[in-house]
Amino acid sequence: MTSPARGFPADEYRDRLARAQALMAEADLGALFLTTEPDIRYFTGFLTRFWESPTRPWFLIVPASGEPVAVIPSIGAHLMGQTWIADIRTWRSPDYADDGVSPVATALAERVPKDGRIGVPSGAESHIRMPLESWVRLQALLGADRLVGDSGIMRRLRLVKSDREIGKIKAACAIADRAFQRAPEIAAAGTPLDRVFREFQVLCLQEGADWVAYLAGGAGPGGYGDVISPATDAPLQPGDVLMLDTGLVWDGYFCDFDRNYAVPPVAQAIEDAHARLLDASDAAFEIARPGATAAELFQAMDRIVSGGAGGSQAGRLGHGLGMQLTESPSLIPDDRTVLEAGMVLTLEPGITLGPGRTLVHEENIAITPTGATYLSTPAPRHMPRLEGAS
Amino acid sequence: MTSPARGFPADEYRDRLARAQALMAEADLGALFLTTEPDIRYFTGFLTRFWESPTRPWFLIVPASGEPVAVIPSIGAHLMGQTWIADIRTWRSPDYADDGVSPVATALAERVPKDGRIGVPSGAESHIRMPLESWVRLQALLGADRLVGDSGIMRRLRLVKSDREIGKIKAACAIADRAFQRAPEIAAAGTPLDRVFREFQVLCLQEGADWVAYLAGGAGPGGYGDVISPATDAPLQPGDVLMLDTGLVWDGYFCDFDRNYAVPPVAQAIEDAHARLLDASDAAFEIARPGATAAELFQAMDRIVSGGAGGSQAGRLGHGLGMQLTESPSLIPDDRTVLEAGMVLTLEPGITLGPGRTLVHEENIAITPTGATYLSTPAPRHMPRLEGAS
Repeated sequence: MTSPARGFPADEYRDRLARAQALMAEADLGALFLTTEPDIRYFTGFLTRFWESPTRPWFLIVPASGEPVAVIPSIGAHLMGQTWIADIRTWRSPDYADDGVSPVATALAERVPKDGRIGVPSGAESHIRMPLESWVRLQALLGADRLVGDSGIMRRLRLVKSDREIGKIKAACAIADRAFQRAPEIAAAGTPLDRVFREFQVLCLQEGADWVAYLAGGAGPGGYGDVISPATDAPLQPGDVLMLDTGLVWDGYFCDFDRNYAVPPVAQAIEDAHARLLDASDAAFEIARPGATAAELFQAMDRIVSGGAGGSQAGRLGHGLGMQLTESPSLIPDDRTVLEAGMVLTLEPGITLGPGRTLVHEENIAITPTGATYLSTPAPRHMPRLEGAS
Repeated sequence: MTSPARGFPADEYRDRLARAQALMAEADLGALFLTTEPDIRYFTGFLTRFWESPTRPWFLIVPASGEPVAVIPSIGAHLMGQTWIADIRTWRSPDYADDGVSPVATALAERVPKDGRIGVPSGAESHIRMPLESWVRLQALLGADRLVGDSGIMRRLRLVKSDREIGKIKAACAIADRAFQRAPEIAAAGTPLDRVFREFQVLCLQEGADWVAYLAGGAGPGGYGDVISPATDAPLQPGDVLMLDTGLVWDGYFCDFDRNYAVPPVAQAIEDAHARLLDASDAAFEIARPGATAAELFQAMDRIVSGGAGGSQAGRLGHGLGMQLTESPSLIPDDRTVLEAGMVLTLEPGITLGPGRTLVHEENIAITPTGATYLSTPAPRHMPRLEGAS
């Protein structure tokens, strides 16, 4: 149960900054303007659960040369002051007259030439975390034409993880591995599903999670209705399959995988379907290496789970993973992302066995220079049984 | 340990819809266009932790007359189908060519007259949860002039809670009360702070939390550096004050309050400061009633904690609470919100005792027709001691 060191040395952030600035030069951007938790943390290391509060906007400017400038609510000054960031400007938020717009516009004006373009993450999976009214005001102050897309720079940067980042994701996976191993301690025929959810989160914490940002799952006879519902108090029944899917966090990095359990008696059709899911993730794992594409991994799994029918209601068969539960790329037919060493992916094939009867299986892998490696311990081919307390 | 029923009957949602439509008529809006978790859940009851994934946008249209239209990724169809919403339209997301923009534009065109204005939450505490590129495309499809602010309608609706909503917040508070009572079981001189954080989350789950969306805190000799930092592995020391601040969730509703504990020996100055914080929240509680303003509650606390100096680095001394950890209003000098029965507030005075030495205390209250009532069990005047295992 050894874990890597917490945090990153400053050179990790300087590397990220250098790579960002190289991409900004190519894209002719004078700065990146960042507003979301993972994008700001990527360059600063500013790690807090306080983002759960929607009240205050937070801003980071990454200039084309020089160091980042944090323009943040004063409540965050103490914590940001412990990161490597030197230029920290604060205002007392919430301020109904001007909630950070003027200070961030001033900082941008200082750091970006008058005609310089400012890149804002604008594509898939992004959003601007500030009120629309403030955004429109910032456009007016700076010139709307200068605020442009970031040319996908943040996506490209975060797509490839450093060894240190992969170490943290692996630590999160190892915690979930141990919690999944212990699931039979807390679930058996008769256990209400909401109690299973609650106690599984306890297991995750006991095994070392900092917090359990995500837990979903389902249970039903020969499959479950979907994979995003909260638990009801319906007790597990003989013949049910129970699925638990967790995104727990260790030092700011997620795992995201699930495990299926069978409440005896187990129908052969379910056993076969589960085996087919493992065949599917195996098939994707086999071809996962630098040069393969996200779409190819999708096709490898889709051939096995739906005979190449083109996917499920879930819309994809896996995705990127890191500072967020889900990240780019998506394993879908249209995603031509070419895999590189350092990418971290989930393989998440699903099978629909009938109306309201789905089975989903998920593993976490990292792409290596020569292939791929599992970060989760691959699920056993024989679905674990929930036999009840001994 | 009795809890209210989960969920809401459909008439709760119909009431919310009727109030929204009355306000929309006043503001001359043809629809509300909603993109965030709490705004969509407010009208639908769609409750899932899946929002942790940033990949997919979700949309709800609340027309000026008739029922809401959900335009959502197909992965959510099963769960949305269990709510009272009848008109559910899906697309297979992520779709890189068109991630829901066309279907939502079509639905808006159907439900809103050609010249009708569409209200989008745009003010303090809001953001638009969709990629900027998609937003710009939607503006182009509909006419940018038609997408206007929502005149604060979502804020006004969510500001006043129904009795059923207050019942859920109270249930969350009761769970936290019990967990705070048990904190001395898990914390004493020598316990690393990160272990305290982990085990406190376990207590919250054991006492009935669905999940622990927020936990922060701090520890130090005579105060802590801030209230938003994650835990380090530094052990508690004799003379420390430990503060734990939790926003746990029960059936989609938050509590948000903290408790302070003293590791003996306890300096008289700390005891006095803690008493002053309780005096401050008492003073705000005394004047909290319909007709009082958010600013008046601020002033009542600020007089006691800083002699009327005008607040702290935190920027406010309390806030609204409900479907989110923090909501409108803010207890700041500029917030003139007039309190009404059904509002739920936190009272959160803080004192700075020296550099990096803050003490913060927090209670949760609901405004009643004649005054206010505590939802959290008020903290004992004598700070609980962490004496170690017996």
